[in-house]
Amino acid sequence: MSEPSTEAKVGAAESAALDLANVSDEARSNALHAIADAIEDAEDEILAANEKDVEAGEEKLAAGEYSQALVDRLKLSPSKLESITEMVRSVAEQDDPLGETLEARRLDDGLELYKVGVPIGVVATVFESRPDALVQIAALSLKSGNAAILKGGSEASHSNRVLYEVIRDATEGMPDGWAQLIEAREDVDRLLEMDESVDLVMPRGSSAFVQYIQDNTKIPVLGHTEGVCHVYVDSEADLEMAADVAYDAKVQYPAVCNAVETLLVHEAVADDFLPGMVERYAEAGVELRGDERVRDVVDVDAASEADWTQEYGDLVLSMKVVDSLDDAVSHVNANGSKHTESILTEDAERAGDFMRRIDAASVFHNASTRFADGYRYGLGAEVGISTGKIHARGPVGLDGLTTYKYYLEGDGHLVASYAGEDPTPFLHEEFDGEWVPGRLSRTE
Amino acid sequence: MSEPSTEAKVGAAESAALDLANVSDEARSNALHAIADAIEDAEDEILAANEKDVEAGEEKLAAGEYSQALVDRLKLSPSKLESITEMVRSVAEQDDPLGETLEARRLDDGLELYKVGVPIGVVATVFESRPDALVQIAALSLKSGNAAILKGGSEASHSNRVLYEVIRDATEGMPDGWAQLIEAREDVDRLLEMDESVDLVMPRGSSAFVQYIQDNTKIPVLGHTEGVCHVYVDSEADLEMAADVAYDAKVQYPAVCNAVETLLVHEAVADDFLPGMVERYAEAGVELRGDERVRDVVDVDAASEADWTQEYGDLVLSMKVVDSLDDAVSHVNANGSKHTESILTEDAERAGDFMRRIDAASVFHNASTRFADGYRYGLGAEVGISTGKIHARGPVGLDGLTTYKYYLEGDGHLVASYAGEDPTPFLHEEFDGEWVPGRLSRTE
Repeated sequence: MSEPSTEAKVGAAESAALDLANVSDEARSNALHAIADAIEDAEDEILAANEKDVEAGEEKLAAGEYSQALVDRLKLSPSKLESITEMVRSVAEQDDPLGETLEARRLDDGLELYKVGVPIGVVATVFESRPDALVQIAALSLKSGNAAILKGGSEASHSNRVLYEVIRDATEGMPDGWAQLIEAREDVDRLLEMDESVDLVMPRGSSAFVQYIQDNTKIPVLGHTEGVCHVYVDSEADLEMAADVAYDAKVQYPAVCNAVETLLVHEAVADDFLPGMVERYAEAGVELRGDERVRDVVDVDAASEADWTQEYGDLVLSMKVVDSLDDAVSHVNANGSKHTESILTEDAERAGDFMRRIDAASVFHNASTRFADGYRYGLGAEVGISTGKIHARGPVGLDGLTTYKYYLEGDGHLVASYAGEDPTPFLHEEFDGEWVPGRLSRTE
Repeated sequence: MSEPSTEAKVGAAESAALDLANVSDEARSNALHAIADAIEDAEDEILAANEKDVEAGEEKLAAGEYSQALVDRLKLSPSKLESITEMVRSVAEQDDPLGETLEARRLDDGLELYKVGVPIGVVATVFESRPDALVQIAALSLKSGNAAILKGGSEASHSNRVLYEVIRDATEGMPDGWAQLIEAREDVDRLLEMDESVDLVMPRGSSAFVQYIQDNTKIPVLGHTEGVCHVYVDSEADLEMAADVAYDAKVQYPAVCNAVETLLVHEAVADDFLPGMVERYAEAGVELRGDERVRDVVDVDAASEADWTQEYGDLVLSMKVVDSLDDAVSHVNANGSKHTESILTEDAERAGDFMRRIDAASVFHNASTRFADGYRYGLGAEVGISTGKIHARGPVGLDGLTTYKYYLEGDGHLVASYAGEDPTPFLHEEFDGEWVPGRLSRTE
């Protein structure tokens, strides 16, 4: 049997999405539990397929084409599979993101408007080498009633294929075609052209990769290109706390988007703060780059202009002395990526001033930038982090995979009655109530 | 003084947006009242400028370049200005769309997360010939704390220039540069390239125009390209009601996007329903096109395949007989533009089935499609209608011009404490509370 075309796959997903929107939460959750069970049952098969990917990856590692980190991310193990099935079951147990009546308004007697949460429709994800990403995205899509187009990295193709088949076979009761696997790179370009059929694309991977997707599709993109995050040590900071937070924000996990890249220090505390901080960073192996005023106080390499907008994603940090809170705000708004910013100060007013004036998805006071994450925020499973401002911002949970629909229940109401010479006035009364289809119908 | 470049204008708006986000609702509303007063004071000047546009428009009308409708839309009058100032004052009186705490969650003791409504930032609109659109968009942007880039039609250039200057001068207390006027067509193309600076673009005008904008920018677009709306007369419809609604949906105002374009009729009622309906439409001058089964019952022109996806925007209607509710749903999902769809039936279950399965921003039961409108929905002033599913769907009010921001208040909290071997568990308790900057700060 020849592989269906990308168009056929997307078409099948589109059709499944219409049905999936009306599958009950119970059925969607049961299907997720079935996925978790099936992954457990297929453990040997999954690990065998993964072994092929890892072997191929190790050859490429030996040839200098892949990094050790990539091969590590690729590798599944019984304990990794266990955490995957645990994740799937926890998604199943989340509150239903669908069907909630968000607003109810009586426009006139017998004319009632309801705004109700519904799935977006067809959601495509193009993701990095981790095979667990495929399961996570499929689970989040199913829970939120969306059909999923899944395109993983070619380096994980054997693992992805088996995981996809396990998921598909475990969810036979769901609308046929709700999950689709795309494997060839050229099919991604075709997918990105299908803005009439695909409602949202979520790229996961490097900044350059996300940027590539954004530049090559008219489909709305949910993702973040960069995390250029700042920690600002204010003149009124508790310097001991500041050192702990600044350390955590860089060192605890430097490879991620919410790690700090530039430390801003108010001139009033630079002399007291920088020497001890630099020593601590140096012990952790952090490569430091400072502006001239930093270098007047401590002996570090010189930062260039390019450092202020760079996401190192590594144990590298740029540092700058600022004259004032205003300067800190200006620097962040000019150079940050609107991801996560933190002020360290004991002065509530100064904290509020900074937080209000910074244009970023997350702005923190006396806390590490590393808290910017769906799990830590309590959003349940995380779809991704958005640095855009439209639809969803910052860490995005299941809610980010929903939209809404207006239902209007009338009794033969005509607009002509509300227009013209002697128009009926609208009531526009908000009320508490759930949409019940046909509630106002006269035959009841 | 030479005119600043588009880049300079957008840069000024970007900078103003950061400040405008923190202007109080009272100050924004006062500025709106000042705009309304200033428009009244400048009535003579505005009408004189408009007269120039109208004269030029009439010359083009005589030369066959403009339509009478365009010249009519262009024309301001004392009563039109009065309705404009009334609109501005009503926008001023709307509830503040900003600053609301949408969620508050205690992540741990002393670590509190707040999700707060904020403006989007820089919003650009490219609009049709009506000069009142400029005032409406400026008012909505200001109320929602967004800097506004305004580009009107060249045919209204004198009116737009004067209205813009009146607005700018009346809002001198607002952040400098919050409203920017763009006049040359080539500047629009430059604007559309500035996706780093402009957060949202709202095109208003013909479908082709909106499509052009969507095809030529990476900035998120809020708008609707088409309104291919359906009315479905079910087998269980009250046929008298159905005739009234179907008439209203087409005839009451055929030029707008929420007017019906295709009437679907269940075969069980086609014989009873169509003859009377066709007679009524014919009396109103509606040009009718039917499929073969319609033409078996009534004498109308034949519809072609192209009719099923066409937005006539005029007194033209296509009609089709369907075998079942399923067929009606399939036809609408395949041919509609996800704008507004209506079922006419006395059977509540069938209504619910149709409404749930149709993928459209608005789905109605026993009501005219013409109700799909921000004013009728009670959203206050309308930013536009969106047929996209991301960010805002259907009629969009001031809420559509907002996004949110996460504020996290801590006391030196580190992610390291919540990770590793013996992690502190998160509390993740929702609570009722408003963000107060620095509330947890120890100096208080």
